[in-house]
Amino acid sequence: MDRKARRRLVDRYRITSGKGFRLKDIDPGSTEGAPDGIEDKDFVEALQRDSTAELAELQDKLYAQDRWAVLAIFQAMDAAGKDGAIKHVFSGLNPQGCTVEAFKAPSATELDHDFLWRHVLALPRRGHIGIHNRSWYEEVLVARIHPEILARQKLPAAVTGKHIWDERLEDIAAFERYLGRQGIVLLKFFLHIGKDEQKHRFLSRIEEPEKNWKFSAQDVAERQHWKEYRDAYEQAIRATATEAAPWHVVPADHKWFARLVVSETIAAAMERLDLRYPEVDPEARDRLQVARAALLAED
Amino acid sequence: MDRKARRRLVDRYRITSGKGFRLKDIDPGSTEGAPDGIEDKDFVEALQRDSTAELAELQDKLYAQDRWAVLAIFQAMDAAGKDGAIKHVFSGLNPQGCTVEAFKAPSATELDHDFLWRHVLALPRRGHIGIHNRSWYEEVLVARIHPEILARQKLPAAVTGKHIWDERLEDIAAFERYLGRQGIVLLKFFLHIGKDEQKHRFLSRIEEPEKNWKFSAQDVAERQHWKEYRDAYEQAIRATATEAAPWHVVPADHKWFARLVVSETIAAAMERLDLRYPEVDPEARDRLQVARAALLAED
Repeated sequence: MDRKARRRLVDRYRITSGKGFRLKDIDPGSTEGAPDGIEDKDFVEALQRDSTAELAELQDKLYAQDRWAVLAIFQAMDAAGKDGAIKHVFSGLNPQGCTVEAFKAPSATELDHDFLWRHVLALPRRGHIGIHNRSWYEEVLVARIHPEILARQKLPAAVTGKHIWDERLEDIAAFERYLGRQGIVLLKFFLHIGKDEQKHRFLSRIEEPEKNWKFSAQDVAERQHWKEYRDAYEQAIRATATEAAPWHVVPADHKWFARLVVSETIAAAMERLDLRYPEVDPEARDRLQVARAALLAED
Repeated sequence: MDRKARRRLVDRYRITSGKGFRLKDIDPGSTEGAPDGIEDKDFVEALQRDSTAELAELQDKLYAQDRWAVLAIFQAMDAAGKDGAIKHVFSGLNPQGCTVEAFKAPSATELDHDFLWRHVLALPRRGHIGIHNRSWYEEVLVARIHPEILARQKLPAAVTGKHIWDERLEDIAAFERYLGRQGIVLLKFFLHIGKDEQKHRFLSRIEEPEKNWKFSAQDVAERQHWKEYRDAYEQAIRATATEAAPWHVVPADHKWFARLVVSETIAAAMERLDLRYPEVDPEARDRLQVARAALLAED
């Protein structure tokens, strides 16, 4: 499967305009775009290796050129495979220039600030790839579904009116537009898992001892809010999918497929940046020759 | 001069809509709104003491209530009195809950991030007053007038087109709208000094040995760009003055007057927040009585 064929995996799952977007139009079980023979495990592993190797090359140029930054954010229901995707896609990159930040429940200090504060702190530097495992979108998902989480933010009553979720989405869209203008290429991934597949994965986590650590009873409780989360995701994607900050709604019932779509999406976006090793001007090239001569003259 | 009279100082210098704003409509030498007898030094000092004392009371409630934050940002031409205003207005407040951040030339780490990054890091916590001596507006002032400062940010060419200043102003306005929605009350001050008064103050800094440390030859060089700065300020105020994030264009040829307007403006804004000490509910009050009884029973 050549690069061009791999790239075709990307386009069909990219949402650049939220208008009319419906989550139910995308089948979590889909592997559309994958070539025949894709069921073979060795073949898939080779594909993923190629894809990550390409990403590593692009990362090297990104770092050397030191102009753009890339930020990939991952959102999903529990057990959709965020951690696995991050592990498989980015293992092979140079950690000097690639940082993962996992956002869990905010600390007291973080709660004392505006909700974007802790996310801004973790933004990638120029030349780096940043990966955010969960993101500011939690502020229009979990905070929306659980009022006690919003209450913990101690916002004045005057700013928590009935328009709060629309306002937050508007603020997020404006923030993301700003990031683009600052040379931070934002790629948003929603790993889209089906409710049945989630149940299946939860059961594995309970039944297989080496997976027990991944399971929390809280996960099953959250499952009761499936529809609310689904609606909140749909509204978030509608309000914030743009050309500059597209969403990628990735069918995630097949882990190998989701991972391949993720790495291909990032590689395709980086390729569009026309990354290049900095060129050395003639004067600097002369200085290189002087340095070379000096080194050779040593004895 | 009672509180009501002091407050009248505020309104005439507050800009809540940028439409049609012209800097030349405000005389830097004005003391309009000040009562008769204001020339007397003792009288002015007493006024300033009253004003700061009121601010300290409001700060105490802000801290106890722990919902709102206040952020005052100061912009001005050199020698307009930013440092003096900060010193006089805020000396008397509890430093636990009041932090000043002075923004100078950005570090290498700061330059590796988007321009708001270092400013976001320094945002005040809930319950606190933050004071920023210079701010993100430098990004549409000094960076606009000196192309080499923009170049140091190493932005990709694709995002530094001809609309960059309008885009930055739009991004700043959206960021400030977000801050308001997060319960951060933003007060923007432009200390408006006349060109003659600046010359006079520079000469004092050169001629009076104990002021020499305040002077840099660079300041005189910047003075050559007076008109460009003036235009850049005017455009910034036009693009970002709103009800939620007003500008205060404070006549600053008279230091005492500028300081009084600043402290009155902040006090007036905090008064509108209806700050209160948290009320203790009946159950908690009962617990207080139990604790009291236990303390008294000790021997």
